[in-house]
Amino acid sequence: MERVYNFSAGPAVIDETVLQKAADDLVCYQDKGMSVMEMSHRTPMFMDIYNDAVAVIREVLSVPDDYTVLFMQGGATLQFSGIPLNLMTGSKAADYIDTGNFAHLALKEAEKYGTVNIAGSSLDKNYTYIPDMKTLKLTPDADYVYITSNNTIYGTRYIEYPETGSVPLVADMSSNIASQPLDVSRFGVIYAGAQKNIGPAGICLMLIRKDLLGRENPLCPKLMSWTLEEKGGSMLNTPNTWGIYMMKLVFEWMKAKGGIDAFYENNKKKAAILYDYIDGSKLFQNPVEKKYRSLMNVTFVTGDADKDAAFVKTCKANGLENIKGHRNVGGMRASIYNAMPLAGVEKLVRVMCEFEKSNL
Amino acid sequence: MERVYNFSAGPAVIDETVLQKAADDLVCYQDKGMSVMEMSHRTPMFMDIYNDAVAVIREVLSVPDDYTVLFMQGGATLQFSGIPLNLMTGSKAADYIDTGNFAHLALKEAEKYGTVNIAGSSLDKNYTYIPDMKTLKLTPDADYVYITSNNTIYGTRYIEYPETGSVPLVADMSSNIASQPLDVSRFGVIYAGAQKNIGPAGICLMLIRKDLLGRENPLCPKLMSWTLEEKGGSMLNTPNTWGIYMMKLVFEWMKAKGGIDAFYENNKKKAAILYDYIDGSKLFQNPVEKKYRSLMNVTFVTGDADKDAAFVKTCKANGLENIKGHRNVGGMRASIYNAMPLAGVEKLVRVMCEFEKSNL
Repeated sequence: MERVYNFSAGPAVIDETVLQKAADDLVCYQDKGMSVMEMSHRTPMFMDIYNDAVAVIREVLSVPDDYTVLFMQGGATLQFSGIPLNLMTGSKAADYIDTGNFAHLALKEAEKYGTVNIAGSSLDKNYTYIPDMKTLKLTPDADYVYITSNNTIYGTRYIEYPETGSVPLVADMSSNIASQPLDVSRFGVIYAGAQKNIGPAGICLMLIRKDLLGRENPLCPKLMSWTLEEKGGSMLNTPNTWGIYMMKLVFEWMKAKGGIDAFYENNKKKAAILYDYIDGSKLFQNPVEKKYRSLMNVTFVTGDADKDAAFVKTCKANGLENIKGHRNVGGMRASIYNAMPLAGVEKLVRVMCEFEKSNL
Repeated sequence: MERVYNFSAGPAVIDETVLQKAADDLVCYQDKGMSVMEMSHRTPMFMDIYNDAVAVIREVLSVPDDYTVLFMQGGATLQFSGIPLNLMTGSKAADYIDTGNFAHLALKEAEKYGTVNIAGSSLDKNYTYIPDMKTLKLTPDADYVYITSNNTIYGTRYIEYPETGSVPLVADMSSNIASQPLDVSRFGVIYAGAQKNIGPAGICLMLIRKDLLGRENPLCPKLMSWTLEEKGGSMLNTPNTWGIYMMKLVFEWMKAKGGIDAFYENNKKKAAILYDYIDGSKLFQNPVEKKYRSLMNVTFVTGDADKDAAFVKTCKANGLENIKGHRNVGGMRASIYNAMPLAGVEKLVRVMCEFEKSNL
């Protein structure tokens, strides 16, 4: 079976060489006589995988020593509760910037545990931009400031980050982690569900500045306590061992391909091809304010629901899968994460071009 | 590489044909042109896998229609908090039966959210038995009664369950689900981390009687709400898609092999071979009260730490992995879950026998 080009927003494309490696080693991992899925998480054979995963993540993402690397379960959504449960315990107030569906879900959840100040919002224009950092209404004694660095559904991304002084900045980077250079030290907490750019679903990577540990709400469920997870080395209980292994393979592949800088160049190139075509198109439009356009999730519409549906069908017939946009915005969305080859984007543009010719 | 016999308590052995199937389909699942790990959880191709998983689980475990089947993350440990957060909201008191490490961790966690009554305990004899059901001190208005059906570390199992009347019985069955016939209707909630008998780590199967939904604590994190998970069809957020797929393969394999009854017969046979040998041995002893002996986790000691260590080494040299007992009890433990072949147990007994001859 030939592989398709998979433009899914997540779970999403994983490089074929990574998958092939996982397949080759699935029944018997190297000389161990068992699958990674069968390894006790406490054994040296799994600990080697775990330690290699942490090391390559630290290297590729340039994680400073004063940050811990944790593998949690429950995706970003569990952290929508985990963040206030671990941090909203000082002034019991936090600033949220509402730039899309997941930012909004995060702030609604935080309202259970304290006071949420909306420090900025782009809801007024259906989340098609990121508020100017100079207009944010930040609270001086907030327990943290929360952002979503890339908005998967609306196709926007932050191009600069809020200046929060001594207030820790918390970022959900699920949909653009490892896609562009990152100064981890600008953040108190960075977290990302793996299933978009760095692995399969079911595992959430967290980078936490260590001085932020030890602040949790007494009602925080034990497994959601960052402090206890850090003490337990991400093994307070049995972690998602397969997810950690797959993440290791993905980061090793990224490192071999030149690391973040190489992917960033490639990501800019892929996005430019697509946005340039759209900007010159008489059929397709992208609704996002140009400077905030995501490099990972490119949304576009024809303005005609029937044409949108016909285009999605044409894509499918051409081996371009999961091009349909999210129900909140309609139209189309091409998610072009690190593992989407340039050839996939080029083929998409060819199909768009042909479709446009016959549908204007 | 030849596969070893893996006696790990969890993550644990998975049948080789199941692993081979996963390996064969890993890069391209059937005619879909992508890996299961790359499939959007909202697409028909993944929903087919999901629906097949639920159907085969319902069939193999004989799950009645008034129970929902949920796939959660965070293992049993997240449910140690999830159970009180979802159920301890009436009288705000619950009865716990303390029969081992995980039962104890569960009750310590529940104390955060309400009053825990220890209705029975086997701590007095280092958890080597299950309290007689007639001696339990159950609270009439408890929100639930909690048990751990099989104690992985201590090698005990319930042979009958408490009569709780209208109070729902909640059971952690992580280490013996699907190993013996099960009358689901005796329970309000059954849950099991998959990584022992039914799949890889990172996914937790839950069977919940539907009338118990809608009772959660207002501070329950959204992703831990059984009610919201049920409404969202286990897809309140992106689930562990690979875990669901693997669990489907394991249950399909169980069904093809004759289902629970066939495995129960085989499990009794495997356990009998091992316990019979131990009972006749002059070197090895099993400390558990006979009638409560686990069919899944067989603990044994020589009474001499050096001999224990030498035996573990001998096992390793013979391709018998992960025989070392848990640090709480020392000695050895052979976890002989459904996927452990009879030949593995027979080989272990041969190695024990030879070791005994030269070490008495």
